Amino acid sequence: MPRPSTLAIVLAAGEGTRMKSAVPKVLHRVGACTLVGHVMAAVEAAGADDVAVVIGPDRADVAAEVRRFSPTAEVFEQRERCGTAHAVLAARTAIGRGYDRVLIVFGDTPLVRPETMATLAAAAEGAAVAVLGFRPEDPSGYGRLVTDGGRLIAIREEKDASAEEKTIGLCNAGLMAFGGGTALSLLERIGNANAKGEFYLTDAVELAVASGLKAVTLEAADDEVMGINDRAQLAAAEAVFQRRARAAALAGGATLVAPDTVFFSADTVLGRDVVVEPFVVFGPGVTVGDNVTIRAFSHLNGFEKGKLDRVAVEAGVELGPFARLRAGAAIGAGAHIGNFVEVKASTIGEGAKVNHLTYLGDASVGAGSNVGAGTITCNYDGYGKYRTTIGAGAFIGSNSSLVAPVTIGDGAYVGSGSVVTDDVPDHALAVARGRQVNKAGWAAEFRRLKGKP
Amino acid sequence: MPRPSTLAIVLAAGEGTRMKSAVPKVLHRVGACTLVGHVMAAVEAAGADDVAVVIGPDRADVAAEVRRFSPTAEVFEQRERCGTAHAVLAARTAIGRGYDRVLIVFGDTPLVRPETMATLAAAAEGAAVAVLGFRPEDPSGYGRLVTDGGRLIAIREEKDASAEEKTIGLCNAGLMAFGGGTALSLLERIGNANAKGEFYLTDAVELAVASGLKAVTLEAADDEVMGINDRAQLAAAEAVFQRRARAAALAGGATLVAPDTVFFSADTVLGRDVVVEPFVVFGPGVTVGDNVTIRAFSHLNGFEKGKLDRVAVEAGVELGPFARLRAGAAIGAGAHIGNFVEVKASTIGEGAKVNHLTYLGDASVGAGSNVGAGTITCNYDGYGKYRTTIGAGAFIGSNSSLVAPVTIGDGAYVGSGSVVTDDVPDHALAVARGRQVNKAGWAAEFRRLKGKP
Amino acid sequence: MPRPSTLAIVLAAGEGTRMKSAVPKVLHRVGACTLVGHVMAAVEAAGADDVAVVIGPDRADVAAEVRRFSPTAEVFEQRERCGTAHAVLAARTAIGRGYDRVLIVFGDTPLVRPETMATLAAAAEGAAVAVLGFRPEDPSGYGRLVTDGGRLIAIREEKDASAEEKTIGLCNAGLMAFGGGTALSLLERIGNANAKGEFYLTDAVELAVASGLKAVTLEAADDEVMGINDRAQLAAAEAVFQRRARAAALAGGATLVAPDTVFFSADTVLGRDVVVEPFVVFGPGVTVGDNVTIRAFSHLNGFEKGKLDRVAVEAGVELGPFARLRAGAAIGAGAHIGNFVEVKASTIGEGAKVNHLTYLGDASVGAGSNVGAGTITCNYDGYGKYRTTIGAGAFIGSNSSLVAPVTIGDGAYVGSGSVVTDDVPDHALAVARGRQVNKAGWAAEFRRLKGKP
Repeated sequence: MPRPSTLAIVLAAGEGTRMKSAVPKVLHRVGACTLVGHVMAAVEAAGADDVAVVIGPDRADVAAEVRRFSPTAEVFEQRERCGTAHAVLAARTAIGRGYDRVLIVFGDTPLVRPETMATLAAAAEGAAVAVLGFRPEDPSGYGRLVTDGGRLIAIREEKDASAEEKTIGLCNAGLMAFGGGTALSLLERIGNANAKGEFYLTDAVELAVASGLKAVTLEAADDEVMGINDRAQLAAAEAVFQRRARAAALAGGATLVAPDTVFFSADTVLGRDVVVEPFVVFGPGVTVGDNVTIRAFSHLNGFEKGKLDRVAVEAGVELGPFARLRAGAAIGAGAHIGNFVEVKASTIGEGAKVNHLTYLGDASVGAGSNVGAGTITCNYDGYGKYRTTIGAGAFIGSNSSLVAPVTIGDGAYVGSGSVVTDDVPDHALAVARGRQVNKAGWAAEFRRLKGKP
Repeated sequence: MPRPSTLAIVLAAGEGTRMKSAVPKVLHRVGACTLVGHVMAAVEAAGADDVAVVIGPDRADVAAEVRRFSPTAEVFEQRERCGTAHAVLAARTAIGRGYDRVLIVFGDTPLVRPETMATLAAAAEGAAVAVLGFRPEDPSGYGRLVTDGGRLIAIREEKDASAEEKTIGLCNAGLMAFGGGTALSLLERIGNANAKGEFYLTDAVELAVASGLKAVTLEAADDEVMGINDRAQLAAAEAVFQRRARAAALAGGATLVAPDTVFFSADTVLGRDVVVEPFVVFGPGVTVGDNVTIRAFSHLNGFEKGKLDRVAVEAGVELGPFARLRAGAAIGAGAHIGNFVEVKASTIGEGAKVNHLTYLGDASVGAGSNVGAGTITCNYDGYGKYRTTIGAGAFIGSNSSLVAPVTIGDGAYVGSGSVVTDDVPDHALAVARGRQVNKAGWAAEFRRLKGKP
Repeated sequence: MPRPSTLAIVLAAGEGTRMKSAVPKVLHRVGACTLVGHVMAAVEAAGADDVAVVIGPDRADVAAEVRRFSPTAEVFEQRERCGTAHAVLAARTAIGRGYDRVLIVFGDTPLVRPETMATLAAAAEGAAVAVLGFRPEDPSGYGRLVTDGGRLIAIREEKDASAEEKTIGLCNAGLMAFGGGTALSLLERIGNANAKGEFYLTDAVELAVASGLKAVTLEAADDEVMGINDRAQLAAAEAVFQRRARAAALAGGATLVAPDTVFFSADTVLGRDVVVEPFVVFGPGVTVGDNVTIRAFSHLNGFEKGKLDRVAVEAGVELGPFARLRAGAAIGAGAHIGNFVEVKASTIGEGAKVNHLTYLGDASVGAGSNVGAGTITCNYDGYGKYRTTIGAGAFIGSNSSLVAPVTIGDGAYVGSGSVVTDDVPDHALAVARGRQVNKAGWAAEFRRLKGKP
């Protein structure tokens, strides 16, 4: 028997006015990833063969984000907002191609696990409709899933529910899956004879049942189906995401001294015996090897100007406190990156030390080199960026300026406070600073003139 | 009918021995504002016409803080501590001037909302006494508000309460309001025939009732009436303040990735679509425009050396991570202030970039200029502070020192590592650094001498 | 009557496979101190005369950590893992020396208070066995302490418990004490006729009772007896430790603006009226005097490279935000250490100011001196560390490099941007920088050549 085919439809057309934002709702972020990005990643992990995304009119930004996650996704515009079934039918041509299953998910519901989506899609194979349910602490306000002998017979909105139906704890989470054979005909039969004149996806259940088709339910965990309508719900979803990420890190053998103070991104990778002190932020695109220690107030982020260039930290590295690793920072095994140090698009060799108040941009530092406090790579001239190359076993004296493009050879030595503009040969010394002059008694006289001895 | 007149009396004489502090209790801070400052702001917002503050003996520091909030407030000293009614009567001359309402609030109870105070004052117009109540989770230990048919008939202390009275959930929050006509006579009839020999304000209720006057209650939210007696309660009040401030920021359309890790001051102003990463502290005097991104580990504070000089961040600015904006920092639209950058009493022009390891003090930076990594304005000579002026479209090479007073012209260029002491004309280049000398083989010889090749 | 003698046996042989770590479990840390370190400190504070520690085979690292806390502790190896009683008997020679009490504690249970240990040991004097109990919220899974008329008669494992015994709330916390006279004979009579073939310490209770000896229980607080088996439990224990430390700091008269965001070590010492902003980390070995203000994002740590060299902050100092004090930093009364400043193995004189972007390593700064922004002590030449000495009342201009060994005299003045390699006499001026050259129109021409005017 061949694997059944699945079309996932992602509804991402909501305006999200309660966000009070110029940014469309599905482009807000959780775990440093857009809401729709989470959903795109989840439908892929759930095994969808094709993905159709329904977006609002003139939302090139949403379309671009969708394509960043899935270049082959089909994007449909819902020109007018006439309800969820109307939104789904914006993808009519995709549905019409005939899949075994049609899975419908929401771009503003980012925490549904891929396994839950896959199970929901599978449930629609033996049935015409499968609806995801959940059991909120307080079900009032939610649509109730009315079942009879294991079958779903209706989704009853709060306002239409009988007293008995209001006692039902299982509520509608929104996500649905349709058996491919009857999906389009069911969707097209949904009408808009209701107060708002909208086409509601939930009506599919009663239509299916009335046609003698089978509808079923599947129950999700409470923390999966949080929809996001305002900033407080966005923050609540972020909290759920972080709780999951922290638990996963601990289970994988990392020490988080204070888990609640460590923030992960959706794609953070941590090795074993990593120790993370309080107050550390992992932005997108960070991989950390075994036995790395990350001290407090460190910030790692591989995503910059819309582009991902991963931060890679190899085994045994010590980072921080107050370290910042930016896109393209690659820190070799056993290296030290210390306080008030920024590393961007640079490769730091094995065992090298960059301990204090330093900016390394567009640089490579050889194995075992020591970069002194206050070193600055002058990598930008107002127009282009240039590279600084430091060999192995080199010593860069403190407070030096390395004016790129420039090469410091293996084993070379730069005197403290130098401004290095020319290449330094291997094993040579470079000094580039003014000569000291002492003026006896000057300070005493200065203070006398100021009248404050 | 003319607007009724209100006198607010702020009781701020408590010593606060349980704080274990040399600082008087009401000068401890919540939301970076003194406790008494919160109360002064609240009574003003509640519409008090005049404010009398009762302070402890020889507390010039409290008097000064009171006047900072309200230069016209009258300050009275309570020479001896003989109870709350005695404290109120320290302001007898103010009360005697005749107001429609006398509102009594506490300098160590900073979280009462102005609307609650206003409602309490209004309630005293149709009654002789109005008492603010609240319903704590566990009422034991609190005085109970004994009512009969909607009227307050007594405030019963726990130790004097009957078994039935102990079941009352509504407790005395301390704040009271008096109808102006009978205020002084009631207060003067309070006696001190009790175990401690003190004059208790709460006795006013039974005196009023015995005289056939009306007493009423008003119920406050639980989180409004937290009094502060020790450091743990101070921290608890801070937590309530922050919870309110975070909720208000979210409701106003800001994204706080992790609300619990963002700290606001009482006067913080945030625009729409501001994104705040975890771990950001807003000290007093900060205004942030629309579409500003504030990355982790940023610290903004417009209050320094007892003076407020607001920090102003215009639309579209990117701040941090690890940015520090101090008093008088004004950041123009679209500018970037990056990591390990401190800005004090400086104006940064539209679109300018100050991205790394820089100190800008007493400076102005023109629109579109780029200030390189490691730039330092040398603004202090041990006696005075001097200004650095950088024109528009200028480029300050990395690791430069700008020795103020100095002017860098429009479009000028400073070579990396320069120490600039003289003005640089528009569109000129300034270089001020030593010439580089390379000594071949020196480093190899140095290592040989050290015996560690 | 002489003071009774106590032997404490610390069981520290567990592998801790659920930690998923190459580090043995008892060397993981809580409050920046190893688990076994907490226990060693607690048994000493509880008054143990001698300490025997049972470790796993070939664990020189654990032995070294034990000796760091107690050089006189006897370390025994448990060659095979055959249960807790077998582990205790690894210390047979110590037990055999005859003590009045033998206290048995666990290296992975770091939060038991010394007073609890002392009381448990004392309880074993009038009895053969004393067992520490606690009342978890949910007792299922724990061994129940079955008592009869105040005496302990058995420790019943969950699986062996009757329905009635399962209702017992008092559970076995693991810690036990034995009366010295019968300790060894009881321990040696414990058998291994059970499913796993191990020797269980808990069997001592029924053996004692069967011999007509007395067994008793003592109840601990719930948060004392948390054992640590995985990283999540490690984080939970850290949270308990921090909660205690924060409460102690508040009770002692410190203001913690947001207690949950301040992290202490086991040995942190804070003075009165210390104010700590959010987000501060105290590593090991930190002492802070009265009236010190520590602003956000500060990191203090006296432990480096396995060695403790305390950080000492005297009265009235202002620290941070973004200050880092490392091992051997001694900050004199009233001094200021500002943002992005690192101080290591350095003494800062009374009232001195080091306010911005500075690295001071192996330095001393005299009273009242001002160290300008961007100052770097160049203390390392790749081989050795050298000292920088700055006199009293000196002024170090911004962005200077002080190349150690070097001495700046009292009242001396260093021009901004200087690289100081030679000593500067008292009250002299030193300038060591390039001369400025301006090239008119150069920048305009440069932009023209770049094609982007």
